[in-house]
Amino acid sequence: MKVLDGKKISNDIKNEIAAEVDKMKSNEEKVPHLAAVIVGNDGASLTYVGSKVRACERVGFESTLVKMPSTTSEVELLQKIKELNENDAIDGFIVQLPLPPQIDTQKILMAIDPDKDVDGFHPTNFGKMALDMSTFIPATPFGILELLERYEVDTKGKHTVVVGRSHIVGRPMSILMGRRGWPGNSTVTLTHSHTKNITQIISQADIIITALGTPNFLKAEMVKDDAVVIDVGITRVADETREKGYRIVGDVDFENVSKKVSYITPVPGGVGPMTIAMLLKNTLLARERHRLKA
Amino acid sequence: MKVLDGKKISNDIKNEIAAEVDKMKSNEEKVPHLAAVIVGNDGASLTYVGSKVRACERVGFESTLVKMPSTTSEVELLQKIKELNENDAIDGFIVQLPLPPQIDTQKILMAIDPDKDVDGFHPTNFGKMALDMSTFIPATPFGILELLERYEVDTKGKHTVVVGRSHIVGRPMSILMGRRGWPGNSTVTLTHSHTKNITQIISQADIIITALGTPNFLKAEMVKDDAVVIDVGITRVADETREKGYRIVGDVDFENVSKKVSYITPVPGGVGPMTIAMLLKNTLLARERHRLKA
Repeated sequence: MKVLDGKKISNDIKNEIAAEVDKMKSNEEKVPHLAAVIVGNDGASLTYVGSKVRACERVGFESTLVKMPSTTSEVELLQKIKELNENDAIDGFIVQLPLPPQIDTQKILMAIDPDKDVDGFHPTNFGKMALDMSTFIPATPFGILELLERYEVDTKGKHTVVVGRSHIVGRPMSILMGRRGWPGNSTVTLTHSHTKNITQIISQADIIITALGTPNFLKAEMVKDDAVVIDVGITRVADETREKGYRIVGDVDFENVSKKVSYITPVPGGVGPMTIAMLLKNTLLARERHRLKA
Repeated sequence: MKVLDGKKISNDIKNEIAAEVDKMKSNEEKVPHLAAVIVGNDGASLTYVGSKVRACERVGFESTLVKMPSTTSEVELLQKIKELNENDAIDGFIVQLPLPPQIDTQKILMAIDPDKDVDGFHPTNFGKMALDMSTFIPATPFGILELLERYEVDTKGKHTVVVGRSHIVGRPMSILMGRRGWPGNSTVTLTHSHTKNITQIISQADIIITALGTPNFLKAEMVKDDAVVIDVGITRVADETREKGYRIVGDVDFENVSKKVSYITPVPGGVGPMTIAMLLKNTLLARERHRLKA
């Protein structure tokens, strides 16, 4: 069994990006610039956005944090997005979700220039992904592909079972694993809340990608020998031995499942840390596109 | 066993649309207007476009056929698309594929205003489909959904196996059958040329949608009792008893498979005739959107 070490790989990626930025600087080229918009004071959102800004600093990107009050209207946020779309200094930007209830999230995501949409949530980018065109892939699925690639996990002709059909993980992952190329070319089954006999379906899988948010959902007896297990679940479980009062657990009974499989991602330290690294990679890509257009 | 009669249903749909157009006329409203662009003189393409124009006439739509020579340049075609995008009289239009080799098909499809893209091939529309938003669904998948709906075929929690991952049938069908709602909410497996043990996978399917173009691919012994079989295969087989010298056959051994299953589409007369009916439906939808925007 081999652990797909997202902590290590995400560090490698950040180091590679930092080296590219160093080269840009020594060539006196403009470095990538990511902006992040946050509306309101949600603690978890502030933490996420903070990590993204710090990651930018670490690799040498420029970054701009736009903080807007929780009372911001849809019109005001749309105006801010228009400014960011038109601001030539900014290569890509994200709008941290969730947004306050007075704002229509779909409308906001649709207003972002697809060429600056480094989260890959705009329908144009999602459609390009589904049509095998080059585009921004949402960070979590992109991170999973990167892990499979760096560990040279064979996916061609394998049966991949994806658990959960969310727009940010399950749905895109099911599309990506079935696309031409590698990682891809696998036979993909997408399961969800209406799926019957899920245990039987999972028992046939060569690759299992679970994004349910149900601790201990995936047990050793459900998994085929030598399967590949990717755990995208993130659940906070109360834990008084931790300083924060909780710990993060995935969907997989890691202790027992890890004994049977060929590859597995831990939680934490698996898919999670990859997310921000792939956001940086998308920003690097946005800067390239931006230069090509200029 | 029940035949999903695409010939009958497509006629019903055309009659329903014609009745709506009659109402528009008696209210002195503008009727839907579809334009079709064809480049070159490919016989099959001319036949397809001709049927689309005739279907428009039958339901009372206005239609415009734009014929361009096979020597048309990419720039000339892009200019024509720009005109159609800007022409307020036209609600929707299609560019008949394939295009001559000097023209980049992707570039052309990207140039069509998504709000007039009644074929549903633009990435923005494809992405909206994959993100559960309202949009133009490509005609063949849309036709299959309509057949399932009109015959009240239960899809929730069923295991759907899609054979073939083309952009116009397999990929969108795999997404649509797994979306929330009905027809949908089924567990979907998308198979393709790299799939191993396809026979075993198909044997588990409650619903089989095959779009391979391989006559007699699906045989009775591969299919579960009471399965639903949708045949999207279209292959011309030489047949001297026919006036044209050929007949159209699907992917399914209809004679034997039909004895085991609960529902099945024939070829011809199944999915095929639905395609043009759904193009008309998309044009009707385009006209509604157009009015809402105006």
